[in-house]
Amino acid sequence: MLFLADRIDRPVTGVQNQAMDDRYVGARTPRREDARLLTGKARYVGAVRLPGTAHAQVVRSPVAHGRLLGCDTEAVRALPGVLDVITPADAPDLRLPCVSVAPGQRMTSYRVLDDEIRYAGQPLAVVVAHTPEAARDAADLIDLELEELPAVVGAERALAAGAPLLYPELGTNVLTDFTLGDADCAAAVAGAVHVVEMTFTMGRCSPYPIEPRGVVACYDGDELTVHISSQAPHHVREHLADAFRLGHDQVRVISRDTGGGFGAKEHLYPDEALICLAARRLGRPVSWSEAPGDRLTATLAARAAVHRGRLALDGGGRFVALDVDVIGDLGAHPANNGAATFAVTATMMPGPYRFDRVAVRVRGVATNTTPAGSYRGFGQPEATLTRERLIDEAARRLGFDPIELRLRNMLGPGELPYTTRVHQPYDSGDYPRALRTLRDLVKPVERDDGRRRGIGYSCHVETTGMGPSTDLRGAGIQAGGYESVVLRMEQDTSVVVSSGVVSIGQGIETTLAQLAADRVGVPIDRVRVVLGDTAATPYSAIGSIASRSMAVGGGALARAAARLRDKLVAIAAHRLEAAPGDLELADGVVRVKGDPRASVTLRELATSAWRGWDLPEGVTPGLEERASYDPAAYTFAYGAHAAAVAVDPETGAVEVERYWVVNDSGVLVNPAVVEGQLRGAVAQGIGQALTEEIVYTADGQPMADYLLPTAREVPDIEVVMLRTPSPITPGGMKGCGESGTIGPPAAVANAVAAALPEIAERVTDVPLTPQAVWSLLRT
Amino acid sequence: MLFLADRIDRPVTGVQNQAMDDRYVGARTPRREDARLLTGKARYVGAVRLPGTAHAQVVRSPVAHGRLLGCDTEAVRALPGVLDVITPADAPDLRLPCVSVAPGQRMTSYRVLDDEIRYAGQPLAVVVAHTPEAARDAADLIDLELEELPAVVGAERALAAGAPLLYPELGTNVLTDFTLGDADCAAAVAGAVHVVEMTFTMGRCSPYPIEPRGVVACYDGDELTVHISSQAPHHVREHLADAFRLGHDQVRVISRDTGGGFGAKEHLYPDEALICLAARRLGRPVSWSEAPGDRLTATLAARAAVHRGRLALDGGGRFVALDVDVIGDLGAHPANNGAATFAVTATMMPGPYRFDRVAVRVRGVATNTTPAGSYRGFGQPEATLTRERLIDEAARRLGFDPIELRLRNMLGPGELPYTTRVHQPYDSGDYPRALRTLRDLVKPVERDDGRRRGIGYSCHVETTGMGPSTDLRGAGIQAGGYESVVLRMEQDTSVVVSSGVVSIGQGIETTLAQLAADRVGVPIDRVRVVLGDTAATPYSAIGSIASRSMAVGGGALARAAARLRDKLVAIAAHRLEAAPGDLELADGVVRVKGDPRASVTLRELATSAWRGWDLPEGVTPGLEERASYDPAAYTFAYGAHAAAVAVDPETGAVEVERYWVVNDSGVLVNPAVVEGQLRGAVAQGIGQALTEEIVYTADGQPMADYLLPTAREVPDIEVVMLRTPSPITPGGMKGCGESGTIGPPAAVANAVAAALPEIAERVTDVPLTPQAVWSLLRT
Repeated sequence: MLFLADRIDRPVTGVQNQAMDDRYVGARTPRREDARLLTGKARYVGAVRLPGTAHAQVVRSPVAHGRLLGCDTEAVRALPGVLDVITPADAPDLRLPCVSVAPGQRMTSYRVLDDEIRYAGQPLAVVVAHTPEAARDAADLIDLELEELPAVVGAERALAAGAPLLYPELGTNVLTDFTLGDADCAAAVAGAVHVVEMTFTMGRCSPYPIEPRGVVACYDGDELTVHISSQAPHHVREHLADAFRLGHDQVRVISRDTGGGFGAKEHLYPDEALICLAARRLGRPVSWSEAPGDRLTATLAARAAVHRGRLALDGGGRFVALDVDVIGDLGAHPANNGAATFAVTATMMPGPYRFDRVAVRVRGVATNTTPAGSYRGFGQPEATLTRERLIDEAARRLGFDPIELRLRNMLGPGELPYTTRVHQPYDSGDYPRALRTLRDLVKPVERDDGRRRGIGYSCHVETTGMGPSTDLRGAGIQAGGYESVVLRMEQDTSVVVSSGVVSIGQGIETTLAQLAADRVGVPIDRVRVVLGDTAATPYSAIGSIASRSMAVGGGALARAAARLRDKLVAIAAHRLEAAPGDLELADGVVRVKGDPRASVTLRELATSAWRGWDLPEGVTPGLEERASYDPAAYTFAYGAHAAAVAVDPETGAVEVERYWVVNDSGVLVNPAVVEGQLRGAVAQGIGQALTEEIVYTADGQPMADYLLPTAREVPDIEVVMLRTPSPITPGGMKGCGESGTIGPPAAVANAVAAALPEIAERVTDVPLTPQAVWSLLRT
Repeated sequence: MLFLADRIDRPVTGVQNQAMDDRYVGARTPRREDARLLTGKARYVGAVRLPGTAHAQVVRSPVAHGRLLGCDTEAVRALPGVLDVITPADAPDLRLPCVSVAPGQRMTSYRVLDDEIRYAGQPLAVVVAHTPEAARDAADLIDLELEELPAVVGAERALAAGAPLLYPELGTNVLTDFTLGDADCAAAVAGAVHVVEMTFTMGRCSPYPIEPRGVVACYDGDELTVHISSQAPHHVREHLADAFRLGHDQVRVISRDTGGGFGAKEHLYPDEALICLAARRLGRPVSWSEAPGDRLTATLAARAAVHRGRLALDGGGRFVALDVDVIGDLGAHPANNGAATFAVTATMMPGPYRFDRVAVRVRGVATNTTPAGSYRGFGQPEATLTRERLIDEAARRLGFDPIELRLRNMLGPGELPYTTRVHQPYDSGDYPRALRTLRDLVKPVERDDGRRRGIGYSCHVETTGMGPSTDLRGAGIQAGGYESVVLRMEQDTSVVVSSGVVSIGQGIETTLAQLAADRVGVPIDRVRVVLGDTAATPYSAIGSIASRSMAVGGGALARAAARLRDKLVAIAAHRLEAAPGDLELADGVVRVKGDPRASVTLRELATSAWRGWDLPEGVTPGLEERASYDPAAYTFAYGAHAAAVAVDPETGAVEVERYWVVNDSGVLVNPAVVEGQLRGAVAQGIGQALTEEIVYTADGQPMADYLLPTAREVPDIEVVMLRTPSPITPGGMKGCGESGTIGPPAAVANAVAAALPEIAERVTDVPLTPQAVWSLLRT
């Protein structure tokens, strides 16, 4: 890979957010977690060993739609080694909630074990035995008596008259239907000089983290302890406590290392809740891990949607209106926050452009497939594909250079802050600069090998730093969440950061340590970061999701560190009989500026603070600060992507030969970490663009194949970072975890369209598999 | 046992400390820990099971004084199953500190493995093997090459000219020598009308907790986790981190249930540190428990001292002066706080009386015996024996009634607060009322069985609530310590109290829950108490020692609870649009006084707080309060004891037939718990008075027998509680854990003297074994 980052200097605007002399923030500090992760010492769920552990196997529905009429477990219960069998009759009231609820959403919770079957792979029973093998063998012997019903697959088909209904009592498969933006948008489109209309279909993807989901749960009669691979342990804790009617304090959730989440592990799954139920029933530890064969049906999928988009322009190429009709595939029921994904597709539809009018209608539709959930990017890759393909197609039809057409309609830095037609308050940045920087980077691949080549661009604005804890008073709908940090300096001046965000491979242990070291003023090897244990970390309502761990968690840390320094300086001022303003903290010492003899060591101050010795009036003992940061608003990152593709006209195979990213996520705590996240996310975006799709048969049976991109499919990715500090967050950081996923489907599709202008207007669907491209070229 | 408590009503003075309507505070709430302790589910160290645990055996010195010339371990290392052998050469710099240091004390730390031998049982090596049996067998085979030196046993003998010196470089066995009080005290004695002079010898006792000391330590290359039976986990953590040069945050100490401590488990022992060293060397868990045979030499002993006391009176029986010369037996070296015990003997010598002059000289003397440490009462039973025996003897000689003589010289309630001649600021109480109440309770035993009967009294003031965190600037000498509490209300309104004090059998889990339930305003079954894990509890410098867990820890809790209520009320005021002062919290609801319709539930408030929803300006999210309480001063409990004894003149056997206690420990959170502690402590005091002593041969070999009192030796104990609130602590509580131990040696000895007036002036030593009494009667 090329490493061309940092070619753009830090902008001089907004540096007020970096008040300190940063030694670690901004440095390419090696990731401290890697030593553990790379030497087999990661604390994954699979590494948890508890004496007396039993093993569970989940029995899943073989049919996509139907009814469990009976479940004969008597013979299985009698098998040697079998400890328990749980069926829907054993858990009639066990439900899990939808956390994010879209406007008008008709269902807000679901049964954990339901005898109404709505997707193949739905859990129907659990067998617990002394060994995993005994549990599997016993599960195979469970006799399910099923009534099968006709299934419906595909969001558009579920809308059609006469389609099988998943919830006949509702009379429709539409579970939510709302419109954001301008009521007169359709009229604006109707009156425009030019209108480009296209319909896009996004394939169903899986977040597919490397570590499968897994649980080891134990219950001692009082406390339920749950080791789980999770992005949001406190979330899991709350839902478990509520589901089992335990006190929240009676549930401890531990998720020390999570081997990738990508949104798939941000909530509690029905199968995971069942393992906890089994542990509670048996009073001994119960272990379970997602089986490879179950993975594509047991883990929430994402992205599946159909967008009918219309872009209206005036004669000069000005964007008059953008009108999109989103039909989102919810799967069998709204899960954690399935319909909310489509709402974000709507809110981020305008991207970095000016439109006179915008309207997005969203329908979330039930189908007989695995429920849809979150996946890195959360609706934004879909919005970007639709918008950016429409723009490229408009440029092609109207004879504009696609970059020029974008720049002509792009919000300039002088226009920010800016609130879009769908109410998003863009905070800061220079969107045209990103695109111009990208243009300067791009170099076409010159090669004569019979393949047809093209370069495609895409621009986006990204909602990050999910924050504001707003609630329609009493409605109980969570929109975001603050973060808290507990920051402690021990008597020996070692520093401990404890945060509710989670280590999911994103390097947060390292980056929080960098921030703490700078903000407190100690060497980084004195800083320890404690994450992933609800008994040892402060509350986090939503965990490490939505590109927020550093933007929001780091914001809380910056505040806690400021308080800790203030306290150290106050104690030093008392001891040195000096004014706090005359003191400086550096190199383990607080000294009076200009008087090198008047000083006190951090060690002395820390001992004094913890022992309660010789403290100034009103200063409490200890050196532990707890600070919260509840963002006033989201903060918006942005980026511009370009892909250079080569298409083999004989096979339809698309190769991404080069890829360029210009990204601005504000202040970067660790550029190496951010670039790594961007590159990994681009790989996932290329997967969505070219290879990944969970394909279902018409009767709702998923196909076993799922093609993740490999090193072969992912080219060198050139990354250039801009750094416009966020005016929202205390550290100036914006989110970056999802950024890389948002651009690729659009950039790759635009590149394919550029390579194949004769079919450009029909390049609308992803993944662009060889078969799909070959078909487009042949029809 | 009789249960006659609560006969005295709560006094009306000082009730300002009880602002709340108490539902649980003051109630005889059953101890919640008992279900666990009584059903074998206690979390003692012996119950810790970690995969791959190795087992350690400590090799101890068979001689009391000498030198380890060599230690051949080669053969042992080669034995099957042996994993490691540690000798002094492996840990030349491993030292532990003395925490409390007496004025002028000559040594403030000691080697963990020392080749200079100063007591029989001193650790000389550690063997680690796969099984406990293999470790024991291998330890037996270690070849110790020893040079034996003459030993000295007994504090007075160690003072004598020509006595063997433990530290020849010092030229003396006196390690500390200081005098408290009035310089002209001796002159006052010399000029007095009456002087009673007696010399008292206190036998060496063992705290002897039921759970032996034990450790399971493991080290993962980064964190050292230590399960240990301890009264002060944070203390252990600091000393381990410092000893091993680890960051304090790298050491986690867990002590969930401690099966009795009595002062013996308030610090880190050399053998315990060695187990941690073994775990660190091996990188696997290492387990060790004190062997029954080692117990009396391996665990710190206490009480051994000789007091030469002189009480001077005027012609009317007024106390003119009290002059005492204390020779304290430190054992082989000052340990955790050995010499500090004798300092407290000095500070508490005056008891509840007025003296014109007081002086106490303290010498701490090294002898070839196990080092001395803390034991419930910490020097105060010794002070009380000396003072109260002198008073009884003065009454006998001068013809006073012993109670009248006491009352004549006792500080009255109008004289408090009062600072003694040795600088103790007695805060509150009615000492004469305690003695008069006692007098009314006492009923002599009338029985004609050939035994001689007597009743003895003793009165004391007790220093409790060890607190003020004072330091001679930079001297590093700890005098006390504050406590912190973290108090959290979860979203479901369950409440978690986390405190650095430890559950050592004293019922603190129950009493903290009572206090929290009342002060927060929730049912007690909603309150959970988390103790004994440095990773989950706030810092406690000194732990559960010195009758301070409730007085100081409860004080911090009362403060945290007040803040939590304030926050709940502030949020409610915002939601109800009312003034906080117009609101009341009760029954899970905050309502506007006088308007039953205007209310909001605690559950709504808790959800709002944790979610960060709809909070008033300036209120941070979450419902977790951290509060500290650093007492301005100690708070002083007091008591009056009486014993009725029968002495068999044929055998010298003393039976305590009845025992009465009047005690005032301020506000009682749980009278049943306090009475239980008093009764248990009286049993220990009777043990000291009659049976318990670690006897050494002249060459420093301890005898194996140690006679703990049984139900046979302990009579019914009648307890009456007074309740003068402390003006110092936030809850009005004073300490009570040690109270019961302070009176018995004096009361029993006075009773024996009353029963046997012909030998009264020679009733000076404890224990008063049958052999000792028989000898007194015969000589």
